[in-house]
Amino acid sequence: IKESQLKADAVDKGNFRHYMLKEIYEQPFAISQTLEGHFINHRLQENSFGHNAGEIFDQVKSVQILACGTSYHAGLVARYWFERLARVPCDIEVASEFRYRHPVLAPGTLVITISQSGETADTLAALQEAKKQGAKYAVAICNVPESSLVRESDLALMTRAGPEIGVASTKAFTTQLATLMMLVIAIGRRFHLPNALEEKITSELFALPGKIEKVLELDGQVSELAEQFAEKEHALFLGRGTHYPIAMEGALKLKEISYIHAEAYPAGELKHGPLALIDADMPVITVAPNNSLLEKLKSNMQEVSARGGQLIVFMDETLVPAQDGNVQYIKVPQIENEVAPIVFTIPLQLLAYHVAVLKGTDVDQPRNLAKSVTVE
Amino acid sequence: IKESQLKADAVDKGNFRHYMLKEIYEQPFAISQTLEGHFINHRLQENSFGHNAGEIFDQVKSVQILACGTSYHAGLVARYWFERLARVPCDIEVASEFRYRHPVLAPGTLVITISQSGETADTLAALQEAKKQGAKYAVAICNVPESSLVRESDLALMTRAGPEIGVASTKAFTTQLATLMMLVIAIGRRFHLPNALEEKITSELFALPGKIEKVLELDGQVSELAEQFAEKEHALFLGRGTHYPIAMEGALKLKEISYIHAEAYPAGELKHGPLALIDADMPVITVAPNNSLLEKLKSNMQEVSARGGQLIVFMDETLVPAQDGNVQYIKVPQIENEVAPIVFTIPLQLLAYHVAVLKGTDVDQPRNLAKSVTVE
Repeated sequence: IKESQLKADAVDKGNFRHYMLKEIYEQPFAISQTLEGHFINHRLQENSFGHNAGEIFDQVKSVQILACGTSYHAGLVARYWFERLARVPCDIEVASEFRYRHPVLAPGTLVITISQSGETADTLAALQEAKKQGAKYAVAICNVPESSLVRESDLALMTRAGPEIGVASTKAFTTQLATLMMLVIAIGRRFHLPNALEEKITSELFALPGKIEKVLELDGQVSELAEQFAEKEHALFLGRGTHYPIAMEGALKLKEISYIHAEAYPAGELKHGPLALIDADMPVITVAPNNSLLEKLKSNMQEVSARGGQLIVFMDETLVPAQDGNVQYIKVPQIENEVAPIVFTIPLQLLAYHVAVLKGTDVDQPRNLAKSVTVE
Repeated sequence: IKESQLKADAVDKGNFRHYMLKEIYEQPFAISQTLEGHFINHRLQENSFGHNAGEIFDQVKSVQILACGTSYHAGLVARYWFERLARVPCDIEVASEFRYRHPVLAPGTLVITISQSGETADTLAALQEAKKQGAKYAVAICNVPESSLVRESDLALMTRAGPEIGVASTKAFTTQLATLMMLVIAIGRRFHLPNALEEKITSELFALPGKIEKVLELDGQVSELAEQFAEKEHALFLGRGTHYPIAMEGALKLKEISYIHAEAYPAGELKHGPLALIDADMPVITVAPNNSLLEKLKSNMQEVSARGGQLIVFMDETLVPAQDGNVQYIKVPQIENEVAPIVFTIPLQLLAYHVAVLKGTDVDQPRNLAKSVTVE
């Protein structure tokens, strides 16, 4: 019943000015839908992924993720999850690079492809290359059940985001992340994911829709912040760990729909080059979900401030901000570490959206871009 | 005798306007120096890396490279080499990310760190983290013999680039690449590097200084090209395979010394977002050493041209350029595929240099940057 409701909603924009904004607001529901049917008494049922899922997962020795664009960013987050939470060796590569470079795949490598449409040409070709290199099993994470990627994979984990109309992907990304976390649990059980951690992550997944509802309340504040960006031509996004890919995703959204040249860096690399770019025209956006990053950020902040650069920090509300001149803090409702990247994505999506609206671009159909990249 | 000559040269700028330009021109000699003493009758002698080198290499099952900034780009090239040429499984990560993310290291993983100074704080910390995760052996690729990284590693492969004064690394990078290729040969012998390919690569390494001399003759042409950039605030660098890291390095040089916001993308990702940025203000620089890339580039070229974007292609002189409107070709002397990334680096270094000179920046001491990043 819920599924048909989503599909009915999806054909028009409802009260929203753009599909993208509607899709940003649909994320709590889309994530609920994506989780539904996979748990009994809050315990993940891996046979919900397919009758042969357990058999396939039993043979996994390592994981290779292949994807493009926004889906690649989801995979980057999952890489950290696989290795840090469950000690599953995990590699990831841009599909268009993997398919041409004659990569080495160890026996027992499970290939995970990620694509909203399931028709991304490079991802399909990378999957074929992986099979040629001896990959025995492939899992697709996909939003379109009838797609080529689903047909060519041994297992398909569907994101139930509903149709995504905006070219800049939003709800597809966060439902991909929720799906990947379920996969981390299922495979992690065969590695070193502690029971207690599995239970903690599961609770966090179920709490996500509510958390995202709360984060969406930042909309007004982010909308005001956007006014500072409308005249900028550049932006730098910084993050560490699982939040480096979130910084990449934030930069990509801004690029795609507001045409601002936004670039992401792992915060530790700032001193190895990009610091030379910092001046009053280059705002620096940082995602700081935890204290250890905030500590590391202090010296970066001082350097950015000293150059007249403006630092904007999206920060867990429970943290105490460092006192420094040219820094704005946007407090994000408290969230557990493991699922924080999903929640911290939301304000960055809103930022890109509001900047684009202020700049008057075609938000849902940005220039030069197609929704599904079905050519190379 | 040669070594002392290099050291004597290195204390002043000679006839060069900047240390950076001098160091760019020193590359043929620096690479000769780096290769010297490691070959007998054109065959690599692995004991030249240390009496225990062979014993260490015998135990390698895979390779993990750790580095920052320009050295990270050298490692990215080496990753392709290890896997494609010799089928050695190879992973690479930015040191500041690796050290904090609790990574998984398989038994038999050889850690390779790369740092010009050997004092890069994050790289040293990443090495310590790798040892904590069970890494048994570490190789340092370094330009300073007495450095911390050398002391803390089991083997040290020295780049004999001589002192590098310019903050933007040039000869350290290309000598790192030459050194990494020697390591690919030594370890590759234990994997699947064919004898004939080893001989071919060895010849190519010995031919490198001569090839680079020829490429340096492009200086005038690149200097003219630089005039088109002096007024730009943005640039996009594209590459595929081993030339994607070269595109990254080209973008980083331009960032560091000319303060132009240059960003690199693997060419296949252009359609997944950055294409929205292309207009007349965003020149696109492409490194196209071989025909297969040139073929793939054709559709990118048309899209870039259609948006009024200007495409500049550094291309092997033996290739036949596609006929298209807004494209400039810079023909680079023919070079074999394996070592091409080393040679294609040179015109990008020259481009960054000449743009910076035109912009009147402090070429050897760009704002905000230090030569060795000895803090986090």
